[in-house]
Amino acid sequence: MIKVGIIGATGYAGQSLIWLLSQHSGATIDFMCSHNNTDIAFSQTYPSYEGFIQDKCIDIHSSLKRLPYIDLLFIALPHGKSFDIVEKALEAKAKVVDLGADFRLYNPDVYKLWYELDHLATKHLKTSVYGLPELHKPEISKANLVANPGCYPTASILAIAPLLANSIINPSSVIIDAKSGVSGAGRSANISTLLCECNESIKAYGVGSHRHTPEIEQELSRVAGEELAISFTPHLVPMNRGILATCYGNMAKKIELKELYKIYEEFYKDQHFVRIIDSIPETRWVKGTNLCDIALRIDNRTNRIIVISAIDNLIKGAAGQAVQNMNILFGLNEAQGLKLIAMTP
Amino acid sequence: MIKVGIIGATGYAGQSLIWLLSQHSGATIDFMCSHNNTDIAFSQTYPSYEGFIQDKCIDIHSSLKRLPYIDLLFIALPHGKSFDIVEKALEAKAKVVDLGADFRLYNPDVYKLWYELDHLATKHLKTSVYGLPELHKPEISKANLVANPGCYPTASILAIAPLLANSIINPSSVIIDAKSGVSGAGRSANISTLLCECNESIKAYGVGSHRHTPEIEQELSRVAGEELAISFTPHLVPMNRGILATCYGNMAKKIELKELYKIYEEFYKDQHFVRIIDSIPETRWVKGTNLCDIALRIDNRTNRIIVISAIDNLIKGAAGQAVQNMNILFGLNEAQGLKLIAMTP
Amino acid sequence: MIKVGIIGATGYAGQSLIWLLSQHSGATIDFMCSHNNTDIAFSQTYPSYEGFIQDKCIDIHSSLKRLPYIDLLFIALPHGKSFDIVEKALEAKAKVVDLGADFRLYNPDVYKLWYELDHLATKHLKTSVYGLPELHKPEISKANLVANPGCYPTASILAIAPLLANSIINPSSVIIDAKSGVSGAGRSANISTLLCECNESIKAYGVGSHRHTPEIEQELSRVAGEELAISFTPHLVPMNRGILATCYGNMAKKIELKELYKIYEEFYKDQHFVRIIDSIPETRWVKGTNLCDIALRIDNRTNRIIVISAIDNLIKGAAGQAVQNMNILFGLNEAQGLKLIAMTP
Amino acid sequence: MIKVGIIGATGYAGQSLIWLLSQHSGATIDFMCSHNNTDIAFSQTYPSYEGFIQDKCIDIHSSLKRLPYIDLLFIALPHGKSFDIVEKALEAKAKVVDLGADFRLYNPDVYKLWYELDHLATKHLKTSVYGLPELHKPEISKANLVANPGCYPTASILAIAPLLANSIINPSSVIIDAKSGVSGAGRSANISTLLCECNESIKAYGVGSHRHTPEIEQELSRVAGEELAISFTPHLVPMNRGILATCYGNMAKKIELKELYKIYEEFYKDQHFVRIIDSIPETRWVKGTNLCDIALRIDNRTNRIIVISAIDNLIKGAAGQAVQNMNILFGLNEAQGLKLIAMTP
Repeated sequence: MIKVGIIGATGYAGQSLIWLLSQHSGATIDFMCSHNNTDIAFSQTYPSYEGFIQDKCIDIHSSLKRLPYIDLLFIALPHGKSFDIVEKALEAKAKVVDLGADFRLYNPDVYKLWYELDHLATKHLKTSVYGLPELHKPEISKANLVANPGCYPTASILAIAPLLANSIINPSSVIIDAKSGVSGAGRSANISTLLCECNESIKAYGVGSHRHTPEIEQELSRVAGEELAISFTPHLVPMNRGILATCYGNMAKKIELKELYKIYEEFYKDQHFVRIIDSIPETRWVKGTNLCDIALRIDNRTNRIIVISAIDNLIKGAAGQAVQNMNILFGLNEAQGLKLIAMTP
Repeated sequence: MIKVGIIGATGYAGQSLIWLLSQHSGATIDFMCSHNNTDIAFSQTYPSYEGFIQDKCIDIHSSLKRLPYIDLLFIALPHGKSFDIVEKALEAKAKVVDLGADFRLYNPDVYKLWYELDHLATKHLKTSVYGLPELHKPEISKANLVANPGCYPTASILAIAPLLANSIINPSSVIIDAKSGVSGAGRSANISTLLCECNESIKAYGVGSHRHTPEIEQELSRVAGEELAISFTPHLVPMNRGILATCYGNMAKKIELKELYKIYEEFYKDQHFVRIIDSIPETRWVKGTNLCDIALRIDNRTNRIIVISAIDNLIKGAAGQAVQNMNILFGLNEAQGLKLIAMTP
Repeated sequence: MIKVGIIGATGYAGQSLIWLLSQHSGATIDFMCSHNNTDIAFSQTYPSYEGFIQDKCIDIHSSLKRLPYIDLLFIALPHGKSFDIVEKALEAKAKVVDLGADFRLYNPDVYKLWYELDHLATKHLKTSVYGLPELHKPEISKANLVANPGCYPTASILAIAPLLANSIINPSSVIIDAKSGVSGAGRSANISTLLCECNESIKAYGVGSHRHTPEIEQELSRVAGEELAISFTPHLVPMNRGILATCYGNMAKKIELKELYKIYEEFYKDQHFVRIIDSIPETRWVKGTNLCDIALRIDNRTNRIIVISAIDNLIKGAAGQAVQNMNILFGLNEAQGLKLIAMTP
Repeated sequence: MIKVGIIGATGYAGQSLIWLLSQHSGATIDFMCSHNNTDIAFSQTYPSYEGFIQDKCIDIHSSLKRLPYIDLLFIALPHGKSFDIVEKALEAKAKVVDLGADFRLYNPDVYKLWYELDHLATKHLKTSVYGLPELHKPEISKANLVANPGCYPTASILAIAPLLANSIINPSSVIIDAKSGVSGAGRSANISTLLCECNESIKAYGVGSHRHTPEIEQELSRVAGEELAISFTPHLVPMNRGILATCYGNMAKKIELKELYKIYEEFYKDQHFVRIIDSIPETRWVKGTNLCDIALRIDNRTNRIIVISAIDNLIKGAAGQAVQNMNILFGLNEAQGLKLIAMTP
């Protein structure tokens, strides 16, 4: 039984982690830490857990004292808040899956450029592993610190990687137009994410400047074997959950749709959570699951390939992928506790 | 392993049944029958099942031929469509859980009055059991035909029964003001349930005439030990799932809130799925679960008790209760496959 | 041309007022005051006004200095914030329409009981008029201070008043089950009104304790000619705007539906904004308008009358009614600037 | 007073036309024609009009008889249904604004290719004018037949035209990723647009094959002075109204953002309905209006320009533009009846 601690337990990602772990037979929660809800029963913040979880959330000091007694620490905090905690957890011989952004970019200058913060734990950048299992499972299995990918990067990288790995598109032509539900903005009191401000409207935001851009570029550059820059435009959609990424690339060589599908199926043939599908993905079909649905289209009129991917931003884009990484870190079946079918409607 | 067949598999209730049975270790699906999607892979209608369910839906004729080989038939059809199928299933020695309305009302005259149809299988009315396990578990466990309750009645009866059983309110004073998500209207092509017709609006409907009224009255009358009539007003809320019932009754005697809570806790003390809670229920905390959350309030200014209950109309209000009844019918743990925590947000 | 000032201009009610006044040919806005958005262009907070309104919001001190130069002050502030401002406006000979709660309850003890605040301007309670024009137009026309009704009370009182005025129901039997869109909670940063917390869920709140209760009772008692207490339960519906009130009363005498309709049509025959309709109201049909739709049903089985009313909480329930009161105060046509048809879908 | 007839009056576009014409002082509705709601009061289909419009919808035969008595016929029908009606209207000397697709593509072969129908009124293609006033006002003012643009093309062409007119981007690099509310799918009974099928999900559709593609290409080719092909991907967003188009183009020459803004401001300087804005557009700020909001961004990292535009698909994307065209056709002020500010929230 893997003993885990969770820091940031009452945010949407943290809570999703608890939801998944409640259904996982191989892990047990040692503590839940919440800054805003310390000493309050978790089920008071989330009444859905009434009758399932009796425990209260504890504060960060009590949490740090528990580090020696756990096997794995999940951190679900805003960027810039994990440096110190990771340090202490690793010292205490706990493995770490950080759902935040602090250890995803291997180059601290890139981190500083996009996050406008000095990286305060650069030594761990050398050993941290970017936790996208579909690309880095062997490294994850040996890691102590896993940087769980961002939600947009998960959907984007999985959609584009096979194209670049097979030199099918021009690396400088990648455009990712992504759409997310509002839970991606987190559970904090902001006017901009009030129901009345988001409902019945759609907008783009962070055009050309969103912090998930360098993360996507880092991983796609690795796959392509060359440095590339992408256009990435996130949008806010009036719904709770889900990310749809519509990705465009100019074909470097002619290819038939059938062949393209084969390449994707081959690329992901050993993966539990990538479904290469014929029909165009809709986020509802992966809601509440760790799946990434991907469909392919070739537009011969414009010589472009369009790849569309869909994930649940809180599961495959956060907590589910974190559990997937936990499974890998501790030698469990990668899909344990994650064989979920989307609930509809 | 219980072998089940499902008629009406691609409606919202039928699909929810398949969703639950996919997570149930004690049952296996022998066939899925769909009038509108015959010979089409179930996962084509519901792509969420891609990779999980390969089977096609079959037609009613092929389904009827399978009756001798199954243990249990679930029927999820509109009212008036079950008479003949129930007949044949019982002949074939399959037990039946009918999610439709045809066997809920014991008095065929009441059925005719509200449904404007002659009841064509009255002989089975004598042995059918109203499948609300919190009231009728012993009878269900011995039944061959279980009439699975309607969604509104489930939320309403569970909310009101303890008041009447304990003569706390005047039986003629019951008013139930209920609110439902749009999935309650089913998955058929209608202008009135288009997103653009329901979204950003709320309405009442079927005021004084909704067909769930006699069902609530039948059960509450049994509990009260006298014939009663209720006011029941359903409303359509712009959301997919969930029912909230706000119930009013005039106090027949003074009572303290604490004592009232004790009565409810006592009444439901052996039940798996009723949570008597302090905070006022919200449908999101029971979404996707078989739970019924109930909170109590006393308004001394007006001498009224207000009981608020919340369920998921497709789970506790349909498919979940059907699985609960299956568990009881076949001697499994009543909660098997149903220990679900609501996914939020 | 009526010169008006608006305090609380960037809240939802204040902004709705500006939206309506922008379409009103008889009034001009002298100043807009916003605590949170001082010295910021109004169109920066609400980009919809780009190209229409160039002005910045000013602070309260500058606003008070403008009082001598305006004819009418609209105040759209939370309760407890208007006492002093009303005092100064009346001194400066400006008329006041207060969209807040501070001058709606004539009895300061009732105010204190429900709002848990001492009333600090009791002398104006004697001259203030409850601004529901359908009941108090003559007094409004002569008033200096109009207390604009709450949103729930507007829908509720208009629905019930004719029944009590004609002694058709038992005054102690009134139950109002009301449902509101989220804009009723205002435009402030709260977790509880985030899209992810409200969407796909419905809840009751303030059961037996909502502050609109005494306001409804005050007005209905006046109509009934006797003190009465009501049950009032508000609910939060996942939509931006709209209130639906489902109202129940026990018949004091038998009456036919046709006759009941006649009574309502007679009661409201001179009113511009009350539509007595056959079909059951839906909030979408009055969205963005100053209308109140009302339908009637008699349930002979339970001896009850059910009245259903629908308004837009921000128009007839706030800003529209305020403009209607302005029109009456200054002798304009009561409907000027308010002949609006709901935009659908 | 312009006398108009409307064919397709109870669809969403037709109804929006009636909504706008109800607020227009220069036009009067002679007849409303509806196939599905013949001989039914318009206010029965749309109760929002109760008290405003008493008339019934008439059938097509009665409508054709009225052609000699009207000045202008609006047609809001699916493609392929206008050929004959346009013929008869022009014979009867009525001008026509066709909101459908039949006269937008000047090349009947292109029409056949995309719509899979023979064009049955090719002779009128020579005189019909593509009714995007921002590009074709002079021609519109002299036309008898105006082909009102599609919703996606309106948002897309307005966003891209200045770039191509000024040779700022490579014409073959245009990618348009567009997002629409569900009303774009029309008011017909389809499972795919039920609330429960669209809500809480986003999807792409018609990837590489949407019929608005050739319309955008036709107009952008004219502006560019060369034949071009675009990538156009529409998406369905869970909301009633609004289109957001996120448009990408590769810079053909370096340009500063300031200069780019100047070019757009110059291009649209005489237009009533295009707002070139700094902040990124959101559909809510143009909802219910004839405005098109456009913002510009330069991504120097990828050498791309990103233009984002927002319209209301039913107003600027359909009925509002039709009224704008009416105003131009009859020499009224182009903005008459269209000076609308978005209602929020």
